[in-house]
Amino acid sequence: MKLNGILSETRRKTPLVQVITNYVTINDCANVLLACGASPAMCEVEQEAYAFSKLSAAVYCNIGTLTPEQRLAIKEALRGAAEKEIPVILDPVGCGAIPSRIDYIEELRSQYPIHVVKGNLGEIKSLAGIKTEVRGVDSVDDGKDAVEACVSLARDWQCVVAATGEQDVVTDGTRVAVIQNGTQMLTKITGAGCMAGAVIAGFCGAAASSFEGTVAGLLAISLAGEQAAASADGDLPGTFKVKLIDEIHRLTEEIMTASGKVKWITPSQTDSIQ
Amino acid sequence: MKLNGILSETRRKTPLVQVITNYVTINDCANVLLACGASPAMCEVEQEAYAFSKLSAAVYCNIGTLTPEQRLAIKEALRGAAEKEIPVILDPVGCGAIPSRIDYIEELRSQYPIHVVKGNLGEIKSLAGIKTEVRGVDSVDDGKDAVEACVSLARDWQCVVAATGEQDVVTDGTRVAVIQNGTQMLTKITGAGCMAGAVIAGFCGAAASSFEGTVAGLLAISLAGEQAAASADGDLPGTFKVKLIDEIHRLTEEIMTASGKVKWITPSQTDSIQ
Amino acid sequence: MKLNGILSETRRKTPLVQVITNYVTINDCANVLLACGASPAMCEVEQEAYAFSKLSAAVYCNIGTLTPEQRLAIKEALRGAAEKEIPVILDPVGCGAIPSRIDYIEELRSQYPIHVVKGNLGEIKSLAGIKTEVRGVDSVDDGKDAVEACVSLARDWQCVVAATGEQDVVTDGTRVAVIQNGTQMLTKITGAGCMAGAVIAGFCGAAASSFEGTVAGLLAISLAGEQAAASADGDLPGTFKVKLIDEIHRLTEEIMTASGKVKWITPSQTDSIQ
Repeated sequence: MKLNGILSETRRKTPLVQVITNYVTINDCANVLLACGASPAMCEVEQEAYAFSKLSAAVYCNIGTLTPEQRLAIKEALRGAAEKEIPVILDPVGCGAIPSRIDYIEELRSQYPIHVVKGNLGEIKSLAGIKTEVRGVDSVDDGKDAVEACVSLARDWQCVVAATGEQDVVTDGTRVAVIQNGTQMLTKITGAGCMAGAVIAGFCGAAASSFEGTVAGLLAISLAGEQAAASADGDLPGTFKVKLIDEIHRLTEEIMTASGKVKWITPSQTDSIQ
Repeated sequence: MKLNGILSETRRKTPLVQVITNYVTINDCANVLLACGASPAMCEVEQEAYAFSKLSAAVYCNIGTLTPEQRLAIKEALRGAAEKEIPVILDPVGCGAIPSRIDYIEELRSQYPIHVVKGNLGEIKSLAGIKTEVRGVDSVDDGKDAVEACVSLARDWQCVVAATGEQDVVTDGTRVAVIQNGTQMLTKITGAGCMAGAVIAGFCGAAASSFEGTVAGLLAISLAGEQAAASADGDLPGTFKVKLIDEIHRLTEEIMTASGKVKWITPSQTDSIQ
Repeated sequence: MKLNGILSETRRKTPLVQVITNYVTINDCANVLLACGASPAMCEVEQEAYAFSKLSAAVYCNIGTLTPEQRLAIKEALRGAAEKEIPVILDPVGCGAIPSRIDYIEELRSQYPIHVVKGNLGEIKSLAGIKTEVRGVDSVDDGKDAVEACVSLARDWQCVVAATGEQDVVTDGTRVAVIQNGTQMLTKITGAGCMAGAVIAGFCGAAASSFEGTVAGLLAISLAGEQAAASADGDLPGTFKVKLIDEIHRLTEEIMTASGKVKWITPSQTDSIQ
């Protein structure tokens, strides 16, 4: 497991990332991908999505405002991704509040590989069939059994699962990383979760494995968030959002290594998992 | 009539606001809702809109880029809002330039309650059947009989009417508030009107009445605009937009009370209303 | 040929520009149009597009995320534009990576006039049937025969052609302007090309000719980019994007004249054109 070097690899390879996402934060996702070194392409028309995924290094699907058109386009993109064997990152936005989105996700994964599921804890628990509390697209879960929920879903779905929260949890069902960086400011703007998913997709397009790409991606946005929050007027949301993109651009391997707080635990270290 | 306390209530209750709006400023609407303390959810898919409105505290509909899908989704959201008896705020963008939008609005209000109509003066007059001048989505009306137009529409439609302009007018047909804060900079960026509508929806989701919520909401964005324009480089539109979100976030009850200039008049104080 | 005065004319006339564009950078396009003095209207619903183009001074079509709805709306807008004889500016985003978009563009121009085609060099060459290299929506062409490609397409299509790159090339098939301003920072944000197209449309809505409007528009965004990149933290993409809008707003005729580096060449000065 090597987090070191993924940011540099992303900048060196500039992986083309196909993005199908909500229209609320689509601009932020494109800018954050550029800032971390990847090359974003927001290609979501059904007729074009398959061909485009064949050109790409990773596919990021975010169902925040899932239109009928996007439902079809995501399938086409995943079909191409499966054939080309590139990582697919799914952001199950709102699946806690809108259960029909879970049905759609189940349909997707019955047909095509999904390599990473990244959501807030309420969404991850909703997918894992665990009782939780959501408020619209936000999680208000207390986070106590986050690791168990992620490990359970990762084992069940055989993929990497990441749950964002005060601490971010990433697991492939065997290894568990807990990221202890971040800032409350990331909850004061719209799209921090979407941008996290985009950066993960960028990193997965360059990393040796989706697990490493996901841990490094979440670490990157958490660290950039910390730096942005600490800058002048970074405690104000308009300014913070601008600085967040700045800080992703400024991020270096050195900052990742020196300031990153990733705690590695094994699933057995948690109580409720046998 | 009590404006004091609505901002605090919004921050305390964090009302979930369902938003169906144009894609031009959808990100700004989400961020301004977060900055004023509300919780935005941009839920506009026809199949999801009804169920989502049942979870919400207010619904904001902005027809700036009214798609066929949105036409259907808005009806579903309004159906849910009517059942749950939550306020509906309508922003009739472009109804002056595109008369078919008026037909759509008439159809909406024949079926479901609309509690607040907030537009620029050209749009309000177009809805009231009063001759006016528009230029695309902008009003170039001289503003002389703004109060009469608003009162007339408010009485006719039995709802709160707000017309933005150099001075903002808000009325429920009986009481009239004229807001004398604001800045020309709000006309130099796209989406100031949309953001005003969003803040109104956030406040109406927490206020005792839609009339109070609307006055307080327009006052909030006007004051934040003043503060943003007065800050460093606030006379430049890129910076102003960033600072506008910052200043909504920084707004306090004290600033609202100390700097707010709301003039109360009665409809009879205006000439042309009998 | 007179570039001087177009910016002032745009601010004096505030031309209404109908915009049909991708949802990634639609907000940036609206704001940059306001900042350069034009009046944007993002009107793209099929039923409204024809009537709206009849109110407008120019139409800007960008096919970055070409939806089935937009395919129809663009035709309606171009029909209205042809009847009103206003300039149509086309941004053929992604036509290098997605060949079906070329078919659509060919269909468009077989039916309606297109006055300006503005793309990156990879897109322009793709339209001209010249071998090139693209990477998603980005051009990775080395730029050597940019002038020949533009002149060839301009003669063939009988329109103004502009190719952006390290140097921007604009030609009507007879005259060729090479714009030597600009900054690498314009490649670090999403939407610089879209914003360039929007400014060109704004300027063409006020200029004496589409050729002049296009040269002046590209010069304006290049100069504003230079100024933004040179300002504090202007080498960081989040800040740069904010400052770019600021600098478009601050642009003056004096800056255009004093700092603009436009080299005029004749097609015969290039080798490969007979």
